[in-house]
Amino acid sequence: MSDALKHKKSVSRRDLLVGSAVGSASVLSAPALMAQGAVTEWKLVTSWPKNLPGPGVTAQRIADQVALLSGGAFKIRLFAAGELVPALGVFDAVSNGTADMAHTASFFWQGKIPASVYFTAVPFGLLPHEHISWIEQGGGQALWDELYAPFGIKPVMAGNTGVQMGGWYKKPLQGLDDLRGLKIRMPGLGGEVMRRLGAAPAGLPPGELFQALQTGVLDATEFLGPWSDRAMGFQKAARYYYSPGFHEPNGTGEALFNQAAYDALPTEFQAILIEACRAENGRALAESDWENAGSLKLLQQKDGVEVLTYPEDILEALRVTTGEVLLDTSRQDPMSNRIYQSHQAALKRLSAWSDIAMRRFLSARDGFV
Amino acid sequence: MSDALKHKKSVSRRDLLVGSAVGSASVLSAPALMAQGAVTEWKLVTSWPKNLPGPGVTAQRIADQVALLSGGAFKIRLFAAGELVPALGVFDAVSNGTADMAHTASFFWQGKIPASVYFTAVPFGLLPHEHISWIEQGGGQALWDELYAPFGIKPVMAGNTGVQMGGWYKKPLQGLDDLRGLKIRMPGLGGEVMRRLGAAPAGLPPGELFQALQTGVLDATEFLGPWSDRAMGFQKAARYYYSPGFHEPNGTGEALFNQAAYDALPTEFQAILIEACRAENGRALAESDWENAGSLKLLQQKDGVEVLTYPEDILEALRVTTGEVLLDTSRQDPMSNRIYQSHQAALKRLSAWSDIAMRRFLSARDGFV
Repeated sequence: MSDALKHKKSVSRRDLLVGSAVGSASVLSAPALMAQGAVTEWKLVTSWPKNLPGPGVTAQRIADQVALLSGGAFKIRLFAAGELVPALGVFDAVSNGTADMAHTASFFWQGKIPASVYFTAVPFGLLPHEHISWIEQGGGQALWDELYAPFGIKPVMAGNTGVQMGGWYKKPLQGLDDLRGLKIRMPGLGGEVMRRLGAAPAGLPPGELFQALQTGVLDATEFLGPWSDRAMGFQKAARYYYSPGFHEPNGTGEALFNQAAYDALPTEFQAILIEACRAENGRALAESDWENAGSLKLLQQKDGVEVLTYPEDILEALRVTTGEVLLDTSRQDPMSNRIYQSHQAALKRLSAWSDIAMRRFLSARDGFV
Repeated sequence: MSDALKHKKSVSRRDLLVGSAVGSASVLSAPALMAQGAVTEWKLVTSWPKNLPGPGVTAQRIADQVALLSGGAFKIRLFAAGELVPALGVFDAVSNGTADMAHTASFFWQGKIPASVYFTAVPFGLLPHEHISWIEQGGGQALWDELYAPFGIKPVMAGNTGVQMGGWYKKPLQGLDDLRGLKIRMPGLGGEVMRRLGAAPAGLPPGELFQALQTGVLDATEFLGPWSDRAMGFQKAARYYYSPGFHEPNGTGEALFNQAAYDALPTEFQAILIEACRAENGRALAESDWENAGSLKLLQQKDGVEVLTYPEDILEALRVTTGEVLLDTSRQDPMSNRIYQSHQAALKRLSAWSDIAMRRFLSARDGFV
C-alpha cells in the first residue's frame, strides 16, 4: 500500500484483508466492507472558497452525493482553498498523496503541463456539450489520463460553468487599434492571443479584480458569466459587457484522484465517484445557465450595463491569432501535438453538426419567443 | 405493502423487517440489506427494441449502472418492447405495478395526458441544455411530478437524443404551397402544426416508414437525427434532408418509477436510481452528438444527400402556427396551462442567454474551424 493511502481510512482495507480467511489477491466488496462497519474516508482539496457559486457548490455536492450513494460507507471531507493546501497546490497534493482528491480546473497547470489547458477550454474551441462529446466519445479521456499518468493522477470532468462572457470594458471597443496597450486580465491561451495583438495582459487573482478595474489598474477584465460576475460587482466599475467569450466557450471543472487511492477502492466506490462527477456535469451546467440568464436580465434592466458584441475586425484578428497560438502549443512536445490534433478533429466533426442542428434552430427560433 | 411490490424481490423487505428486533417504522439501510445478502430486483419495461441505438442503449446502461453502483444489491431486469408489455403499454404497466420502472418518452402519453408532450420536446422550444435547466432549476420537475402523481408514477429525465433533424423529403421545398396535401409522418405537436398548414400527417410506426417513403405512401418523414436515420435507410428513399428540427429541438428520454416501489427503496437505492438517470442525460447526449456528426458526414459525402434549410416563408408559417397550437393546448385544462406558462417563462429567460452566449459564439467560430 502506498504512502498516499496510509492516513485516510478509519479501518484500513489492509487490516480487513489480513483478517480474511483467503489469502488471494481479491479485495473485499463494498457490501462486505459495509457489513464490517468499515468507513472509507477521503480528503478532497479544492481551489475555491467554500461554496463559491458554481465550482465551490459543485465540489461540495459531489462529496455529499458520494456519501448518499454509498449509504454513508464512503465519506469525503472537503477542504476549501487554503485550509489544507493553497488554491493552486491541489495538483501536487493529490500527486504526493497529501489529499486523495481535488476539485479544480485543468488550465491552472498550464505552466507545468502545457496541454492541460485543452481540458478546460480552448479559444474558438468546443462548447460544453461538444466538449463532453470529445472527452467521452472522441478519445479525449484517454489522452487526459495519459497526460496526468506521470503524476500518479486520474482526472475526470466534474461540473461546468458553461459558455463564458468575453469580459468587462471601461470604454467601448471601436476596432482592433483599441486593443493596443489595453491592460486586461485574461488567463490561459486567450491572454496570449491578446498579448500578440498588442494588449498588456495582467495576472491578478480574482479577489483583486474589482478594485483593479475601478482604480484603472485594469482597463478590462474577464471572469466567468453574469451570475458570478454580478456577484463580483464588476457592473459598478465598468459599463460595457462583451460577448462572445471567444477564449472560453466551455468551463469544465476537473476532479483529480490519486491513482493509487482510486485503484484501492472497491469497484462500487470507483463507480460511485465517477457517476457522481458525471451527473454533476449536467447539474452544474443547468444551474449556471439558469442563474446566468437571470443575472443577465438584472445587469441589463437594473444595472444599466450595455451588452455588446466584439467588432468583426477584432473577431477576425482573434481567430487568426488563436490559430497561430494553438499551432505553437502543438509544437511544444509530442503529447501536446496529439492532444491538439484530437481536439481539432473533434472540433471539425462536431461543429459541422452543431451548425446544422443547433445553430439553424437558434436562428429559426428568432421571432418565436 | 402495495401489490406493485409483491413480486419483485428475491428476499422481500417485509421478510427482513419481520425478522428485525424493533417494530418501528424505520426501514433497513442498504448496508444492512447487503449485510443480510438481500437483493432488490426490479422489472424495467421499455418502448424500444433491445439495444436500439440511442434510447435502447440508454435503458440498458441505466440498469447496468444501478447494479454496479449498488455492488449488485439492486438489480434491474430489462424487458424490451413487447417482451412483457407492448411498447406503448409501459405507462400503464408502471402505474398498475406490473413493472417497477419504464424507459420511454413522455410524448407517447399525449392522448391521455395532453401536457405530457412538454417533457419530451416542444416546437420552437428548449434545446437539450435549456430543457435540463428548466426541469432542474425552473420548476419543471415539480410540474412533471404533479402531472403523473394521479397515476402513482414518479418521472425523471433519462438520456437525450439531442437536437433532431427536420425530416426527409422526396422533392425539395420551394415554399409554403408545397406543404399543401403533403403526406408526411410527424408525431406530436409538430404534426398538428403541419396539419393546420394544409399537410396530411400520417401516423405510421417506425418499422413501416422506409417502405412508405419508398413507395410514395409518404412524401416526407421525420424520425430522429443522422445516426438513427441513416441506420433506417431513409437516404435510399429520399434525397433532401431538411433542418432545423423545428418540431423537436430536444429529445429527453423518460424514466418512470412506480411511486410505491420507489418509496419503499432504501434512501441509497433511490439516490442511485436518480443519479444514474441524471448521469445518462449527459452520456447519451455526448454519444448522440458524436454519432450524429459522423453519420451526417457520411450522408453528405458518401450517400449524396442534400442537406437543406426550410425556406423562410415556411419557417415563418411554422412559427405563427406553433404559437396558435401551443395556446390551444394551454386551454385544455388548468394543469396544461400551468405547464405552458412555466415552459414559456423558461424559454424567454434561457433563450436570451443562449443568444448572447452560445449563438454569438457559434457565429464567431465561423471561419476558424
